[in-house]
Amino acid sequence: MVEVGGYRAVARCDALRRPPFSEAADSLFRPYLSEAHRATLAQLREWMEAAGMAVRLDPVGNLIGRYEAATIPPQLAGEGDRTMRAARDAVVGADSDVNPTPRRSAGTSPEIRGGAKSLILASHIDSVRDAGAYDGPLGVMLAIDVVAALHAQKKRLPFAIDLYAFGDEEGSRFPASMLCSRAVCGQVERAQLDVADRDGISLARALSDFGLDIERFTDACRDPSELIGYVEAHIEQGPVLEAEGLALGVVTAIACQRRYAVTVTGVAGHAGTNSMALRRDALTAAAEMALAVETVGRAGPDDLVATVGRFNVAPNAPNVVPGEVVFTIDVRAGEEAPRNVAAEAILSRIEAIAAARGVTVAHQLIHDLPAAPCDPSMMDFLSQAVRKAGHTPRRLVSGAGHDAMAFAGVTPTAMLFIRCKDGISHNPLEAVEPADAEAAFQALLGLVLKLGEASA
Amino acid sequence: MVEVGGYRAVARCDALRRPPFSEAADSLFRPYLSEAHRATLAQLREWMEAAGMAVRLDPVGNLIGRYEAATIPPQLAGEGDRTMRAARDAVVGADSDVNPTPRRSAGTSPEIRGGAKSLILASHIDSVRDAGAYDGPLGVMLAIDVVAALHAQKKRLPFAIDLYAFGDEEGSRFPASMLCSRAVCGQVERAQLDVADRDGISLARALSDFGLDIERFTDACRDPSELIGYVEAHIEQGPVLEAEGLALGVVTAIACQRRYAVTVTGVAGHAGTNSMALRRDALTAAAEMALAVETVGRAGPDDLVATVGRFNVAPNAPNVVPGEVVFTIDVRAGEEAPRNVAAEAILSRIEAIAAARGVTVAHQLIHDLPAAPCDPSMMDFLSQAVRKAGHTPRRLVSGAGHDAMAFAGVTPTAMLFIRCKDGISHNPLEAVEPADAEAAFQALLGLVLKLGEASA
Repeated sequence: MVEVGGYRAVARCDALRRPPFSEAADSLFRPYLSEAHRATLAQLREWMEAAGMAVRLDPVGNLIGRYEAATIPPQLAGEGDRTMRAARDAVVGADSDVNPTPRRSAGTSPEIRGGAKSLILASHIDSVRDAGAYDGPLGVMLAIDVVAALHAQKKRLPFAIDLYAFGDEEGSRFPASMLCSRAVCGQVERAQLDVADRDGISLARALSDFGLDIERFTDACRDPSELIGYVEAHIEQGPVLEAEGLALGVVTAIACQRRYAVTVTGVAGHAGTNSMALRRDALTAAAEMALAVETVGRAGPDDLVATVGRFNVAPNAPNVVPGEVVFTIDVRAGEEAPRNVAAEAILSRIEAIAAARGVTVAHQLIHDLPAAPCDPSMMDFLSQAVRKAGHTPRRLVSGAGHDAMAFAGVTPTAMLFIRCKDGISHNPLEAVEPADAEAAFQALLGLVLKLGEASA
Repeated sequence: MVEVGGYRAVARCDALRRPPFSEAADSLFRPYLSEAHRATLAQLREWMEAAGMAVRLDPVGNLIGRYEAATIPPQLAGEGDRTMRAARDAVVGADSDVNPTPRRSAGTSPEIRGGAKSLILASHIDSVRDAGAYDGPLGVMLAIDVVAALHAQKKRLPFAIDLYAFGDEEGSRFPASMLCSRAVCGQVERAQLDVADRDGISLARALSDFGLDIERFTDACRDPSELIGYVEAHIEQGPVLEAEGLALGVVTAIACQRRYAVTVTGVAGHAGTNSMALRRDALTAAAEMALAVETVGRAGPDDLVATVGRFNVAPNAPNVVPGEVVFTIDVRAGEEAPRNVAAEAILSRIEAIAAARGVTVAHQLIHDLPAAPCDPSMMDFLSQAVRKAGHTPRRLVSGAGHDAMAFAGVTPTAMLFIRCKDGISHNPLEAVEPADAEAAFQALLGLVLKLGEASA
């Protein structure tokens, strides 16, 4: 039997930490549509093919490894040749033609072999600057080894597996995140291809430079009726599992989120000459507001978090009473009602603080993302698989956004969380115990087998 | 009678707002030892000479206009020729030799005509970036017109007047402030000439490039025994006089000051995944500390001020719980005891806040300036002169630093404050009512005449 599983998945993530898989010499930075991205696709293609998958690139740069279903129902057997030809074409490379079948055509998409639906296993392979190795790639590597294990046992399921390595989840190049998973879910409009990176290069141009056919980017979209579900494994990026001594978590929902930009305007003045009584200090006003954000966050349910993360002071000189502060507020919860109550409470406190201090405050809603609840049946299957792997299926809300958000409204979705050291991510110190990754591998494989039994 | 006084002083400040007297095309920026500085010296030389002064440049770039005393005591009459020759030499220009008499030689310095001491009238002519026109220059222009008024009346006093236009008070080029007035008071060491500007050019090099002889920079130092006092007029740069409807203020002391750099270290983490209970948020900790600074400042005497002016957050991203904040605390008061009590109270509160929140805090004292009290007799004379000019002599502490600080321990020192609009300075919106400048001119002239009567 081939060596597969969580240990290898961790080792493979480690192998992709440096050039040519990173744009940075001494750290990991793998932006969407970069040369590091291209090199990573070549490596993944090799690993996917070795695991028995047919590999293709979709028009937004997602690498898709397909592991076909068990059977070809008789009524579609005549199409086998065409399907196999499409699959063969698709593995040629990034600049190959993608099969021209229109999306959502009735049952004849090349992704469907013999009418079988597919289960998506997925995560992303892009990274922030100075990243850790596991945020995203670990989910892809675990999925590759789940397929490798099936392949080694010559096990086919009643559904195909489409393993997606998404090109962009982090907003690693363009000021928009989860572009690739949202494209698969039909949630990206043509106009969004005009968004530009720091160098002014548009997404449309970058896709084209990468060898992709932007005229067909909507072909990345999958027909929900062809899917049986979406499963993603990901490091927790938080401290909850570690604090409770647990290796794995079953996500109940990806938190809804509201983000505001707040501008506090007081009066700048000389720190020596402006008596305390005459000041309208924007910084002390904003400080009181930041504490109000924290107070409201603490008073809510356990899964409510409220954060002031960015805080910029002007003129920001030691001898000047600050005249302006611009800060952000980020509020998240597993459900929208408590989040909305908290956000409203924060805004009302902020306005009261501004009024009491004689400063002005303006706020702007810059994000409003709904909660993405996971599917109850999928959660139950996943919990059983976690238990069978010898672990406790701790249920928790994901405060971080994930590609799974795009799918939660489209197909039954599940997410498996893996404990990470000190809750650290987006940092080279990000670390995962290989034994925890192995547990995740077992649980993920168990879930796939259970879904296979349930679909049989 | 020539046109002199506050109206002309304001108009002259306005005339120096733009190139060649500013390095910036559309705003005022006049750094020390710049071409704008050189152009300003040429203009001031002309105005000083027209007001009856002999003009020279000292080795640190201070322009000095000397208005001689009334009489040459008989015992020194034989030195008149030499003294006049030295004075003549001295007016030749920036690169002329300065009289080689060693400083503090017994009574034969070229500044002393016939043994007369001198009264220094002074302020600075450098500016911050994007400055107002009056911070510094107004005091110089008023002093020029005080001398012009004496000269027009052919009035000589028992003492000479040395009118200093200091080259640097703002730290406008080098990371050190009041270099020029401190040099006159013997408070600058040779090693300090190694300090470098943003382009890496040392002060020594800049002085040399300006045509000054750095080997003789200590010749800028004046012997205190040759001085009868120091008087500076300056805009208030604060809101107190305006709030009380008063044009002029008599400064009782320049505030003592302590400045700290504080570093708060928590743990950075994902704003979505770190539950409120598990956070060690550096920003909310620092916010609570900033409010403690304000609370202590408000609880003290009226002249106590405590300010958090600079506040930098890391990583400063909307979706990250801040891991570090570095901020400054500036504490000032007219006397050292209340300032010290306040500073200690602030540090103690900060440490308690850090302990309660499980973050670490470190602080470093980066400035500790003693109070510079003004001379009681000089204050009384100035108050009488203000009253005689028809105004109320409001006594107040200067929270801002001034060149007068360097002199307060050296010779009897007085400062006259002039109301400015909205307390604004270091800003193009800085504004002074010409009528207030005229009142200041009258008060300054009155003080000089009173000192003349008192010295007769």
